[in-house]
Amino acid sequence: MRIVIGDKQWSSWSLRPWLALRRTGAAFEEIPVALRQGEATTAAIGRYSPSKLAPALIDGDLVIWDSLAICEYLAETFPAAKLWPDDAALRAIGRSAACEMHSGFQSLRGECPMALEVEPRSVDISEATQKDVRKIVERWSQLLARSGGPFLLGEWSIADAFYTPVATRFRTYGIKLSDHGDAGPAGAYGERLLETPEFLEWERAAKTRSNEL
Amino acid sequence: MRIVIGDKQWSSWSLRPWLALRRTGAAFEEIPVALRQGEATTAAIGRYSPSKLAPALIDGDLVIWDSLAICEYLAETFPAAKLWPDDAALRAIGRSAACEMHSGFQSLRGECPMALEVEPRSVDISEATQKDVRKIVERWSQLLARSGGPFLLGEWSIADAFYTPVATRFRTYGIKLSDHGDAGPAGAYGERLLETPEFLEWERAAKTRSNEL
Repeated sequence: MRIVIGDKQWSSWSLRPWLALRRTGAAFEEIPVALRQGEATTAAIGRYSPSKLAPALIDGDLVIWDSLAICEYLAETFPAAKLWPDDAALRAIGRSAACEMHSGFQSLRGECPMALEVEPRSVDISEATQKDVRKIVERWSQLLARSGGPFLLGEWSIADAFYTPVATRFRTYGIKLSDHGDAGPAGAYGERLLETPEFLEWERAAKTRSNEL
Repeated sequence: MRIVIGDKQWSSWSLRPWLALRRTGAAFEEIPVALRQGEATTAAIGRYSPSKLAPALIDGDLVIWDSLAICEYLAETFPAAKLWPDDAALRAIGRSAACEMHSGFQSLRGECPMALEVEPRSVDISEATQKDVRKIVERWSQLLARSGGPFLLGEWSIADAFYTPVATRFRTYGIKLSDHGDAGPAGAYGERLLETPEFLEWERAAKTRSNEL
């Protein structure tokens, strides 16, 4: 299997399925593509993917061109990795949370892009982004209270892959969840996402690569 | 089962899982919520759904609060309805197409909202929306060429549910796909989506309701 990914310091959409792929234990090859190069980026990704956007998963003749669709394919192909829980109701809740991230929180995503190469610092965020943060705190708190943690559905799942880039944004932009309605569990969960071995591996590569630029 | 939906003339996100739910043949109850009423809308949906956005599916104690997550739940719960194809590769492609709609085509969605109550008329669309239209024409054409039609993956699937509101927008705003790279199949497919019995049932209700306002 091969996965087309953007620069590791910036590409939040690539990070999500990469985390799931790493969890499967399967061997895979990375095809890195340089983002923010205009037409050159589009052309480079277009060699692999019809959407001309990172990420894409290539498995033989099959190309899967969306982050969530890749995760679903990995969950089906590697059932032992339990990327989704066995319980149907819990899986539906996990998909709701992942999908909510997939289509939403636009203000946070636009205003606070993932940037693993920069030193964390505190910034003022707009009212719209504050609203996104409050909603994420609420959602994490609800799910953690229901499951008992340590991850959103109990065991690590695709839902956690979807929120890992969000946790990096909170850290990078100095967003304290206790200022946005968190009684503690949401902030601790965000830190937990950034301590998984898979994320730490990605982060090391991101920092190494950005030092070489 | 109960499904919380917004006004049928406007709520493109409600239409998608409603089409899938109708295809299952299961009995269900609709909980209509009036959109565009500010805080009253938020409060009304918030009685049922943590996201405070339509749609939501309620099955006993379970609440599923995203359109795609609802479709996935229905596909799992009603396998005989074949909302996704049996073939894993085809399913991955269908999910890529549905997910691409779920997170993308923002310009088209913002500039050309679903409005089933208005008479179709031709409008000028921005360059960004033209780009979205060309991308959709390209995607539909590729998938139809691969499957042979009549729907994106051959038989009707969740991918078609996701593009049905798009087809209404092309009709409402007079967007001729032949002006945007279509050799014929994409335009015919868009018309086909609007002729399915399930969509026609939704449309009749949308027009009846908007006449009562």
